Amino acid sequence: MIYIGIDLGGTKIAAGVTGLKGNILSEASSATGAQRDYKEVVRDMASCALKALEQSGRSIDKVEAIGIGIPGIADNSTGRVIFCTNLGWHDIPLREELQKHIRKPVFIDNDATVAGLAESMAGVSAGAASSVFLTLGTGVGGAIIINGKPWTGAHGVASELGHLTMEMGGIPCTCGKRGCLERYCSATALIRMGREAVRTHPDSLILLRAGKPEKISGKIIIDCAKEGDPLAVKVFDRYTDYLALAINSIVSFLDPEVIVLGGGISMAGQFLLDAVNKKMPRYLMFKTMPYGRVELAVLGNSAGIIGAAMLGMILKEGESL
Amino acid sequence: MIYIGIDLGGTKIAAGVTGLKGNILSEASSATGAQRDYKEVVRDMASCALKALEQSGRSIDKVEAIGIGIPGIADNSTGRVIFCTNLGWHDIPLREELQKHIRKPVFIDNDATVAGLAESMAGVSAGAASSVFLTLGTGVGGAIIINGKPWTGAHGVASELGHLTMEMGGIPCTCGKRGCLERYCSATALIRMGREAVRTHPDSLILLRAGKPEKISGKIIIDCAKEGDPLAVKVFDRYTDYLALAINSIVSFLDPEVIVLGGGISMAGQFLLDAVNKKMPRYLMFKTMPYGRVELAVLGNSAGIIGAAMLGMILKEGESL
Repeated sequence: MIYIGIDLGGTKIAAGVTGLKGNILSEASSATGAQRDYKEVVRDMASCALKALEQSGRSIDKVEAIGIGIPGIADNSTGRVIFCTNLGWHDIPLREELQKHIRKPVFIDNDATVAGLAESMAGVSAGAASSVFLTLGTGVGGAIIINGKPWTGAHGVASELGHLTMEMGGIPCTCGKRGCLERYCSATALIRMGREAVRTHPDSLILLRAGKPEKISGKIIIDCAKEGDPLAVKVFDRYTDYLALAINSIVSFLDPEVIVLGGGISMAGQFLLDAVNKKMPRYLMFKTMPYGRVELAVLGNSAGIIGAAMLGMILKEGESL
Repeated sequence: MIYIGIDLGGTKIAAGVTGLKGNILSEASSATGAQRDYKEVVRDMASCALKALEQSGRSIDKVEAIGIGIPGIADNSTGRVIFCTNLGWHDIPLREELQKHIRKPVFIDNDATVAGLAESMAGVSAGAASSVFLTLGTGVGGAIIINGKPWTGAHGVASELGHLTMEMGGIPCTCGKRGCLERYCSATALIRMGREAVRTHPDSLILLRAGKPEKISGKIIIDCAKEGDPLAVKVFDRYTDYLALAINSIVSFLDPEVIVLGGGISMAGQFLLDAVNKKMPRYLMFKTMPYGRVELAVLGNSAGIIGAAMLGMILKEGESL
């Protein structure tokens, strides 16, 4: 049997066909065109999936199920998207609409959940009984995997780790609250800290590389920190303080076997991991608590397709995760 | 079959015999005498258990297992107490020691976990697939129940909800960190807020009732708030702001079907529940997220014995929760 995974992004639709171990057999993609009616977007999702299937050389009857990762919140028991801010979707019957084009069981979940599932089945946390996945990107997404399955909660809204309160009355968040974790641990947060820092240190390597404050990226800050630029080191140090504290809250809450870091910031690699691992003990309760290992995600962009495909492998239609 | 539950507290040992539904058949208690050698404390735990058994009129061969709730962290796979601050215990072979007195399977877990388990099996969250229990006492304890079993993590240190960071660099905590949830949501926190408030408002009903600042209790503050004393209302309002925010983080993390409030502060009853329920929507992501119901614990002090007894009902010896 084979599975189809669709990674629905704000700008790109990527679809792939996978085997039973999450190995990608073929891929296809197209632009999302998020401003269009949802039915047109779903039609293109179906086209992408069928194109990938054609490229795999397999027939449609070999397809067991289709999984979809969305940048929002879905209810897998109804097959509806609850909301998807980037696409302007609210209460969309995604399963029903996709099944108009391809008659197969359809499973939907949040993109971070799907990526976390991929890592737990075919990536760095494979074999762990429990893991928590954190995507450090424009925002901060999360996934909780318990006994091999994503835990998405009683209403499908669990693992919104980016919106844990880390600072009461802190920086306003896009979600309407203040002081959310993603305001301190996302790539957006690192960039904000960098821009703030160069204001008083215009001679920093960060600004030299970026040209102007608006061009400062997470990568530039991290590269400058790796090269030892004092301001970049300071900014990165502040960022990893927040991140270690956030990981510590995950440990105190769920004590998972593995905490996986994904998303753009995780491209900093061992440099990030070393900084976080060095700081973790400092934030432990009583300094002596045992805790899970922190790892970098290994599947990169493929995690979206692989994890979506795997939704179909572990679930029955209509079943809530 | 019957079960024995032992609630080991810092000042009191309470033991009880329960039936299959968590119904208490008999109880016995004695002072903990925490300053003594752990072997003496364990001997008294065994005496208490046997006294309760005698009072129940049942014989020892009817006892299936013994469960123990401790005010600390245990590893149920080894039967050892990792640490127990109140008792000064560190790496104590509690199961082995108790089995010297009573040869039955022994299960050990944190007291909040045990109370949460009791509520989920015989209390307000019975029937819910998932629940999170918060004890609002001297500190803040937590329990996570998923599919009928406590989730205690990969190292037995999960659900330490009192030590989630709510305020970076905030009030120093007894655990060595700063800004932990329990510094804002415990009874201790409410009392601290009350004492701070009367400094600038010595005419408040709170101080009139208490006599002097050191005598201010959580109950006095809540009673004065119920009576409409403006300062008490303000203090209680601030406290429930923190609590609603903390519950909101639990929703964002785990999205449980029920959130149960226990411990001393929960004695404020409907007055507390109304305040929290009114504030919950304000702290939701996008204001429109569905979320579980918030309830008051119903088993009171019996939860310790009932939940401990139930550990033996749902686990196999050596099994990690």
